[in-house]
Amino acid sequence: MPLVRVDMIKGRTIEQKRAMVKEVTESMVKTLNCKKEAVRIIITEKEKEDLGVGGILHSDTDG
Amino acid sequence: MPLVRVDMIKGRTIEQKRAMVKEVTESMVKTLNCKKEAVRIIITEKEKEDLGVGGILHSDTDG
Amino acid sequence: MPLVRVDMIKGRTIEQKRAMVKEVTESMVKTLNCKKEAVRIIITEKEKEDLGVGGILHSDTDG
Amino acid sequence: MPLVRVDMIKGRTIEQKRAMVKEVTESMVKTLNCKKEAVRIIITEKEKEDLGVGGILHSDTDG
Amino acid sequence: MPLVRVDMIKGRTIEQKRAMVKEVTESMVKTLNCKKEAVRIIITEKEKEDLGVGGILHSDTDG
Amino acid sequence: MPLVRVDMIKGRTIEQKRAMVKEVTESMVKTLNCKKEAVRIIITEKEKEDLGVGGILHSDTDG
Repeated sequence: MPLVRVDMIKGRTIEQKRAMVKEVTESMVKTLNCKKEAVRIIITEKEKEDLGVGGILHSDTDG
Repeated sequence: MPLVRVDMIKGRTIEQKRAMVKEVTESMVKTLNCKKEAVRIIITEKEKEDLGVGGILHSDTDG
Repeated sequence: MPLVRVDMIKGRTIEQKRAMVKEVTESMVKTLNCKKEAVRIIITEKEKEDLGVGGILHSDTDG
Repeated sequence: MPLVRVDMIKGRTIEQKRAMVKEVTESMVKTLNCKKEAVRIIITEKEKEDLGVGGILHSDTDG
Repeated sequence: MPLVRVDMIKGRTIEQKRAMVKEVTESMVKTLNCKKEAVRIIITEKEKEDLGVGGILHSDTDG
Repeated sequence: MPLVRVDMIKGRTIEQKRAMVKEVTESMVKTLNCKKEAVRIIITEKEKEDLGVGGILHSDTDG
């Protein structure tokens, strides 16, 4: 702990994932006063057709 | 908020997802008195071999 | 399956939860063509201080 | 209920999943005194590039 | 990893949680061939009024 | 999206939560190139007796 789960739209590069994991971990350590090694992050990428906002599929509103 | 996450067996069409997102959002608005735009839905489709009921994989009981 | 998890701001009555579970289940059955008995819903109520939008705690922006 | 969700690194065989679902269900029944049929398990397999530990992607540390 | 999340009805004793965590971890190690130290379990206890099955709140069907 | 869920041991102050939400959101914006307003964070605080590591309850190993 802390355990961080990030759901995001598919399409980021591995460089972006790498940078995100690094930066978010540092933010957790800085603000929660936890050990770096204790921070775990799980990324889940979602297709636009698997998201709905306001009753509409994201794939229908966002090209 | 509300955030709605739906886990379901793989195989629905995009038309079914579209209808589900629309209907579930309307049900949330009607019963929880929240704004339509505030309802977010995340769909996750699961393979039958990734589900277990009563100690048995769903792929072993359901063709 | 389907499994539906609903995260929402604390404060709804049990009548609202009861209505929401009924209506959302009916929406699932109607659009996904699944059995009513198969629909499971798990509700989680969240405090405003446990939500952040745009980098700000919800308890800081919403009385 | 109980609902058990297992996130694990991709790569297990269906035999391993089958055995895990069987054994974990039996452990739940034995210790929680619940009915076998009531135990549901959902497996999610993750790529190493979707996991971060200590600020580093698992795909960068583990061949 | 593996990460195991268990959602269950409120009311188990700490002895039951302790036994469950021990037994489930051993089941994971035995079937998935992972290290004991790598298994993490997160328990969430739910009120019956926060569960719905077949469109009905669990608190309405189960005393 | 992105949706960030943070599970952490109970006991942080609201100031720590406020700082964490701010910093993590900025890390997401910087590395994923998303809009600040799009980042949502849900915090869940866990009791030590609801966590298991290596088959042992966290409340049994950590005073």
